[in-house]
Amino acid sequence: MTKRADRLQLGAMLVTFPGGSWRYPAAENHRFLDLSYYIEVAQALERGGFDFIFFADKLAVPDRPPDNTENSLRKGTWGSAAPDPAMIVAALAASTQRIGLAYTISTSYQHPYNVARSLGTLDHLSGGRAAWNVVTSHEDAEAQNFGLDEQLERSDRYDRAEEFLETVFGLWDTWEDGAVVHDVQRNVVIDPEKVHALNHQGEHFQVRGPLNLPRPPQGYPVIAQAGSSEKGREFAARWAEVIFTPQPNIESAQAFYRDVKSRMAKYNRKEDELKILPGVFVIVGETETIALEKESLLQEGVDLKQAMAQLSALVETDLRNYPADEPAAPILAKNLSVKGMQGHVQALHSAAVKDKLTLAQLARRIATGLSFAKFVGTAERIADQIEEWFEAYACDGFIIRTAYSPGMSEFARLVMPELRRRNLVRSNYEGKTLRDHLYLARPARHAWRQR
Amino acid sequence: MTKRADRLQLGAMLVTFPGGSWRYPAAENHRFLDLSYYIEVAQALERGGFDFIFFADKLAVPDRPPDNTENSLRKGTWGSAAPDPAMIVAALAASTQRIGLAYTISTSYQHPYNVARSLGTLDHLSGGRAAWNVVTSHEDAEAQNFGLDEQLERSDRYDRAEEFLETVFGLWDTWEDGAVVHDVQRNVVIDPEKVHALNHQGEHFQVRGPLNLPRPPQGYPVIAQAGSSEKGREFAARWAEVIFTPQPNIESAQAFYRDVKSRMAKYNRKEDELKILPGVFVIVGETETIALEKESLLQEGVDLKQAMAQLSALVETDLRNYPADEPAAPILAKNLSVKGMQGHVQALHSAAVKDKLTLAQLARRIATGLSFAKFVGTAERIADQIEEWFEAYACDGFIIRTAYSPGMSEFARLVMPELRRRNLVRSNYEGKTLRDHLYLARPARHAWRQR
Repeated sequence: MTKRADRLQLGAMLVTFPGGSWRYPAAENHRFLDLSYYIEVAQALERGGFDFIFFADKLAVPDRPPDNTENSLRKGTWGSAAPDPAMIVAALAASTQRIGLAYTISTSYQHPYNVARSLGTLDHLSGGRAAWNVVTSHEDAEAQNFGLDEQLERSDRYDRAEEFLETVFGLWDTWEDGAVVHDVQRNVVIDPEKVHALNHQGEHFQVRGPLNLPRPPQGYPVIAQAGSSEKGREFAARWAEVIFTPQPNIESAQAFYRDVKSRMAKYNRKEDELKILPGVFVIVGETETIALEKESLLQEGVDLKQAMAQLSALVETDLRNYPADEPAAPILAKNLSVKGMQGHVQALHSAAVKDKLTLAQLARRIATGLSFAKFVGTAERIADQIEEWFEAYACDGFIIRTAYSPGMSEFARLVMPELRRRNLVRSNYEGKTLRDHLYLARPARHAWRQR
Repeated sequence: MTKRADRLQLGAMLVTFPGGSWRYPAAENHRFLDLSYYIEVAQALERGGFDFIFFADKLAVPDRPPDNTENSLRKGTWGSAAPDPAMIVAALAASTQRIGLAYTISTSYQHPYNVARSLGTLDHLSGGRAAWNVVTSHEDAEAQNFGLDEQLERSDRYDRAEEFLETVFGLWDTWEDGAVVHDVQRNVVIDPEKVHALNHQGEHFQVRGPLNLPRPPQGYPVIAQAGSSEKGREFAARWAEVIFTPQPNIESAQAFYRDVKSRMAKYNRKEDELKILPGVFVIVGETETIALEKESLLQEGVDLKQAMAQLSALVETDLRNYPADEPAAPILAKNLSVKGMQGHVQALHSAAVKDKLTLAQLARRIATGLSFAKFVGTAERIADQIEEWFEAYACDGFIIRTAYSPGMSEFARLVMPELRRRNLVRSNYEGKTLRDHLYLARPARHAWRQR
């Protein structure tokens, strides 16, 4: 069995878009451009002891069939209006003290020099709390905002991503620790013997270096990743320190966990250098009845037509002409190799098989919680499920997602004390950096070159 | 005479680098990676009523001859270690309420879609306080971090910059005001009739749009610019709402002021839509003696060899073999057409002619304050000079720069009350947005297309 920390890790995925469960009475989606909204939630999560807060990202209004730009806007689909998460995490560096700050940057539509610098800056300004969720971006609409007709093929995207990370890590390595000396006697500000050129000459990038920024406090900011395809799993085994993954049930999570961790050895990495955190959709109530009532209220808000369109976009096939009470599994089985989010489609297929779902049932399920597992109930009931997954080596912790942002504060207030009582999470922040929270060592310079 | 606001504008240029006047007793350069340093200064400036705080940027450790990478690091030259200003202004959005937040983004090494989104996000999160200092970047060392052997020629840089701004403004225009409706009855989150594609097909960029972000609160963030070459002046006349310019004396400032404002009519712009703000280096003391003593203390810290190297890099000619007591003007006259910062070289030449400076005198002068004018003395004396320039139509205000960051707080505490007494600045923030502070109207959609 995998060697592992005694405590589990918890991240929180925050809603940053105008739609989704916006009709739910307590939803605060209308505040998605309001900085005070993010500060309130982040501070509540920090009081609760969360390891980090996480922001996804999209670079276009989605238009995947059968939806188009207009429909996505009307529904406020995720991505249709999305503030740049880099600016949000930087603002949160000023408004929080300990919680980790993870945000998404695309390797397809940025340049390594800029990324090394902005992530490194966030790590400095926040005292070592930065994490980078590496994505390759997979929507044609995104490609078309950056001069391409359609997305790159998955293998091209990952080839570029590999070289992108090698370049960014190389830039962070151009400075040794302690290079800034401010030595009045010798009249030296920075010791030039501790700063080195990079001279990267690759297929996609040519970067001389050095970076014009000292080595980040964490050595490297923490690397997170969410790819679940074959390519994505290999990339994660080499680079990721945190994986976000959609897993509909404990069995699929266990299989994923074993598979990815077993790939790490060939990159000279130990299994506990990577935290696998399935996304879980949580509805918590003071009593079971309250939690179930909240769940049905959320389901009532779902428009079946919209939900079928969302499912269609995910599986990249128009399902709206299929009878809604048809079994979902056989149809999904034909569409497992999508160009986009394979992990989500595989999770949906596995859920459809296990729970014998119809298309309509599956569509309703993902309308609020995507293909994530769903934990509903009292704090005790939710802690039971969290504990069960953790003890069964289905995960090293979770990314918590709620349908509406006050749900995050409820989780922090209701569930966190119960997890603390069970000794499943630490009782307070023990260290200062995100690596400290995640029980990850600060890497030495060039450590990644052994992978 | 130009129609103009009754009050003058003040911005503050903050030191974000490890060297410079770091040996001065009160200097805090060692805090350049410490967020609390920026927050302290920004809050002091806000208490003083400054219109905005401004961050320059560089994308490489400078290596312009006769300096090389090693020398720049040893001296801590501006650029050798520079946190990403985007992350700093975002953090300041959370720690300040009114002061404008201006930062630098290069049109040569970024993509318009990302820039439209991050600037727009800052404008939303800060409640309309964002400004973009547009630069084209001019150092070979920067080009070499982005896959080029050397910088683009000036005219190519500006051609790209023109299309870059057209694309960014076009993206901001893809959303009408009021597009986010959250209409529960009609089940509409965003009104798709108020959001439009861009379909930009240009020489450098192809961008479909719409931007996945609502129109910024200011319509467009404020555009600032610092180019002084012929190309730079035309670009500014079309796009800039604020100009930062190095002007060594009132006469050269008047000439620059008349020249740039006279170019605006052909872009259908009124002269008061642009604020020309010379950079001024200020040393203020409670008494004249204190101020002069501070000035000599600063001069003592200058290493003549380093200063000559800095001057050589600016004029793009190795001056270290010239006798230091040789008159500077004839030598500079031969080097007015540098590839880099023409405005600075012209300002130095003009100062060398007027004040009959030797090379050594000129080098010492720029070592602390570049080619900026320098105002030294009590608050009254400095207010006199500010008033004189303003009344003489040499400027619409100033960008204040001090040798060390506590100088900024001193300016806010000592000089601002005196300016307020003279009714040269407003007594408090009257509006919420940076456009309000600068007496600039919120532009209508597509307004820039008339230019």
